[in-house]
Amino acid sequence: MTIFRKPLRVHFSPDKSLHESLRNILGFYPDNIALYKSAFRHSSAATLIKDGIKDSNERLEFLGDSVIGTVVADYLFKKFPFKDEGFLTKMRSKMVSRNQHNNIALKLGLNKLIDANKDRNSHPSSINGDAYEALIGAIYLDKGFDFAKNFMLTRIINVHIDMNEVETKEVDFKSKFIEWVQKEKKEFRFDIVNDGNAAADKQFLLNLIVDDKVIGTAQHFSKKRAEQLCAEHACAELGI
Amino acid sequence: MTIFRKPLRVHFSPDKSLHESLRNILGFYPDNIALYKSAFRHSSAATLIKDGIKDSNERLEFLGDSVIGTVVADYLFKKFPFKDEGFLTKMRSKMVSRNQHNNIALKLGLNKLIDANKDRNSHPSSINGDAYEALIGAIYLDKGFDFAKNFMLTRIINVHIDMNEVETKEVDFKSKFIEWVQKEKKEFRFDIVNDGNAAADKQFLLNLIVDDKVIGTAQHFSKKRAEQLCAEHACAELGI
Repeated sequence: MTIFRKPLRVHFSPDKSLHESLRNILGFYPDNIALYKSAFRHSSAATLIKDGIKDSNERLEFLGDSVIGTVVADYLFKKFPFKDEGFLTKMRSKMVSRNQHNNIALKLGLNKLIDANKDRNSHPSSINGDAYEALIGAIYLDKGFDFAKNFMLTRIINVHIDMNEVETKEVDFKSKFIEWVQKEKKEFRFDIVNDGNAAADKQFLLNLIVDDKVIGTAQHFSKKRAEQLCAEHACAELGI
Repeated sequence: MTIFRKPLRVHFSPDKSLHESLRNILGFYPDNIALYKSAFRHSSAATLIKDGIKDSNERLEFLGDSVIGTVVADYLFKKFPFKDEGFLTKMRSKMVSRNQHNNIALKLGLNKLIDANKDRNSHPSSINGDAYEALIGAIYLDKGFDFAKNFMLTRIINVHIDMNEVETKEVDFKSKFIEWVQKEKKEFRFDIVNDGNAAADKQFLLNLIVDDKVIGTAQHFSKKRAEQLCAEHACAELGI
């Protein structure tokens, strides 16, 4: 239970309030507070420490993302002893999605700790998920893999992730596709070939167009569902 | 040094020879030999243990692949303190490539331990890399993360991976592209638009065609290099 006792160094630390905030959020006092400061430093608030390299949280995010993937792989491997690797892969991709990480960050209250340039009002919501990933990277470096794993199991997976929901939820292909389109800086639109409200069979027939090429087609009574199906085709086509 | 002493259970194990082989290859005696037997069992030699699920190495491969990714991320994070996450990501993808894993498996001699159906002569070479990934999954479950990490650092990364070569080596876009094409079951070919041997400027102009659509174009004095450049364009285009 040593992690709950307040270490002497916290009393005399110039970062005492950060120590206390982290104790409240994480359930333990950090050893190396500098790691956690980095984890919450968005690139907009970072300074150049050497040519081309900033003291932002992006390196920790790279590390933490990988640690999260392994902890989730281990968790799924043991939770589902009779499921094949296809199932495990699919479940993991849903558990470690950008959306999931943003939600976890907000539930933990990490958004209050993020150090970002206040002038930029329009940080994308992924700033929160990125900070969560970097935080796990910091915990891994500060306390080791087993500690980080235990933290994730007891404070995140068992508390903030509804496994039934994850298991039944369909992959959101439209979001996945839009993420790809934005990254690749391409134009896209859904073209309505048949309008379900007007058509005799009441079905929507949609084309998904990327850079003026049809990349997915689908038909459904629900326009939303037709969009999802178009995006699913597009993801398969583009190997996303 | 306990890992070098022969445990009593090895003397009386029906799998004594596998214990000894693993001791020679890995440098330690496994605790749970069943995990290692699974790690070397290719799906062609596996039996159904429950509807739809075989006792092959594919689940361990899923886990091991993730553990390898984290160990390599940690290694790169510490080895290159002044490189950004883009560099780290690129380096990792080269260190954990299919090709790299196949080579490591052969260097460790894992191919001699793989349990596969002898009738099938044409197992792809990735059968070796897959066994290596599954082996790391087995070590992780048997001995824990820190042990698996230490094993990878001392017995694989420091011994079998030439970091200078990894750093300078270009990504092999052609292999990456072909892997994608095969997975997606598509047809492709390189069309020679200008033959460098005949052309006045001695340059090869190639088109890369997928399902009868031009998806990449490149020009170079070397035909091989032109193919690589075509494939690089195609990878960018397809988001591979």
